[in-house]
Amino acid sequence: MSLPDIFQRYRNDIDSELLCVFEGLRLPFYDMLRYHLGWIDENGHPTSQSNGKALRSTLCLLACESISGGYKKALPAAAALELVHNFSLIHDDIQDNDRERRHRPTVWVVYGIPQAINAGTAMRVLANVSMMRLREQGVPENRILEALQLLDQSSLRLIEGQHLDLSFEKRQQVGINEYLNMIELKTVSLISCALALGAMLVAEKPEVILPFLKYGNNLGFAFQIRDDVLGIWGDEKVTGKPAGSDILRRKKSYPIVFAWEHSTTAERKELSTLYQDAEMNGNGRDHVLEILERTGARLQAQELIGRYCGQALSEIEGAPLDSNSRLSFQELVHFLDIREF
Amino acid sequence: MSLPDIFQRYRNDIDSELLCVFEGLRLPFYDMLRYHLGWIDENGHPTSQSNGKALRSTLCLLACESISGGYKKALPAAAALELVHNFSLIHDDIQDNDRERRHRPTVWVVYGIPQAINAGTAMRVLANVSMMRLREQGVPENRILEALQLLDQSSLRLIEGQHLDLSFEKRQQVGINEYLNMIELKTVSLISCALALGAMLVAEKPEVILPFLKYGNNLGFAFQIRDDVLGIWGDEKVTGKPAGSDILRRKKSYPIVFAWEHSTTAERKELSTLYQDAEMNGNGRDHVLEILERTGARLQAQELIGRYCGQALSEIEGAPLDSNSRLSFQELVHFLDIREF
Repeated sequence: MSLPDIFQRYRNDIDSELLCVFEGLRLPFYDMLRYHLGWIDENGHPTSQSNGKALRSTLCLLACESISGGYKKALPAAAALELVHNFSLIHDDIQDNDRERRHRPTVWVVYGIPQAINAGTAMRVLANVSMMRLREQGVPENRILEALQLLDQSSLRLIEGQHLDLSFEKRQQVGINEYLNMIELKTVSLISCALALGAMLVAEKPEVILPFLKYGNNLGFAFQIRDDVLGIWGDEKVTGKPAGSDILRRKKSYPIVFAWEHSTTAERKELSTLYQDAEMNGNGRDHVLEILERTGARLQAQELIGRYCGQALSEIEGAPLDSNSRLSFQELVHFLDIREF
Repeated sequence: MSLPDIFQRYRNDIDSELLCVFEGLRLPFYDMLRYHLGWIDENGHPTSQSNGKALRSTLCLLACESISGGYKKALPAAAALELVHNFSLIHDDIQDNDRERRHRPTVWVVYGIPQAINAGTAMRVLANVSMMRLREQGVPENRILEALQLLDQSSLRLIEGQHLDLSFEKRQQVGINEYLNMIELKTVSLISCALALGAMLVAEKPEVILPFLKYGNNLGFAFQIRDDVLGIWGDEKVTGKPAGSDILRRKKSYPIVFAWEHSTTAERKELSTLYQDAEMNGNGRDHVLEILERTGARLQAQELIGRYCGQALSEIEGAPLDSNSRLSFQELVHFLDIREF
């Protein structure tokens, strides 16, 4: 399985824009951020690591291009989205005690927790620095302020969601609605922000922006639930994360939440005993996998992903898009529906 | 010793403005931030704890008022400065492993490190949310963007400074110029930003803004070096920090850096042995204090503070201020010169 072409279309421009944001930042401090972005290795030597799919920036530029025929105007916003996303990854890795990301040690493992906290926060501030470059793209000042406001609000939602996600790990039971609310904050809001940003920089009318926002909303839910599936059943070699890792760290991801709601009293008792065992190991994980299988959690998760994908497709059906853009929006949905990484 | 009147003058308005920023933020997540600001206790009950001197916001409003005769226009920026300062305190407390601030357990002690990281970053984002309220004060959009840019840049300097400060703890020797560069980033930049913000919101000409910026620059150095003195010789009952705590945590604060540069080979050897001892205790601390006394570090630090204070006074001497404003700027300098808290 390969990435749809649309991820390649903007890649070089996104990377160049990110490089511009870092221009002039010469203190050794910024090595941590460059390391996280995959530009240098632990010793400061240039590398060319994968730094992710750049989903959010791609969505932003596609929305912009599909409305206006060009995407350069939105590049500072696209880079800002990557910076917000990556700030959250640096802090998440500390909070989740994750030692590896994209097949490399995480920032806190290399530089220590105190400095990794600094790296994450600076990455978040740099997102706003990037947004200021919209002035040079001729975006009107009131539009820039609105875009900044949207990005700041989405960042707050993301942090609120991360707070909930962490607090769920300490609870025995989480309802499906609570779970959906949490991922709406943690993941969906930045993804729909990405599409709204790309649109609002070149369009004023709410009725032009709205379909993108709604498409992003559905895509965001699909994306996160697929992420949950991969966090349990994904192939370590492809995802870069150990198999079943979400179980071992007691994440209340969709399959777990579903299984709890659809299990027998006996199964719930088993689940709760397994989750209370501070030393849960591979055997415990396999036992949880068994219960997930029995309750049909995997199939149900995929079914829900499919529903969100269907909704995303129908949201853009009515939008006045050229055939290339439409195809790209559709390909994105089909990829996120079944992605393995 | 009491706070100069100027700290009382804006206090209620600063607090009201901060409350407005938090209006509508009802998730339990924001309890952490309210706790840090001294509005609620650990159980969520309202309290009225001291939440610091509000130095930065006071400086901002004083600069604004001294130019324009009013200060309401700058309130959103003043609140934003408090939020930036407090974000850095929440993260600093994690990074420095500090368990108490303002006579209460720090945020990470109450809520755990992962959630305290979230609280700090959200506080930083809320600073920008506060800045958006400048629109309602009728500040032109291009001016708001410039103000945002200044605040973001100062935040980056602050984080860069914190990075250096932490990295200095691991080094045996730090030169005086390195030290001054570090505090310029960590402390001075936000303090001079405070004055520049207050001025730029009501004045356009660089020659009007510049004296405030320079005043803030000198005041910032004086403030931090006095902080260093209090971190070693301050009265725990007044500062809220254990006596000699900066020594125990191996902070390369001004007196230590000075002592190192002005000590004999034998004293350096003693200092380096003491600092390499992972178990440094009260006796070790007393020994370091003795060496500081011998090299005259305390007097020298106070002398340097005096020089920065003198420079701050002369920077505003030429500024066209009414007598009340002038008096407030002078009182601030005299207070920071000898403050005990």
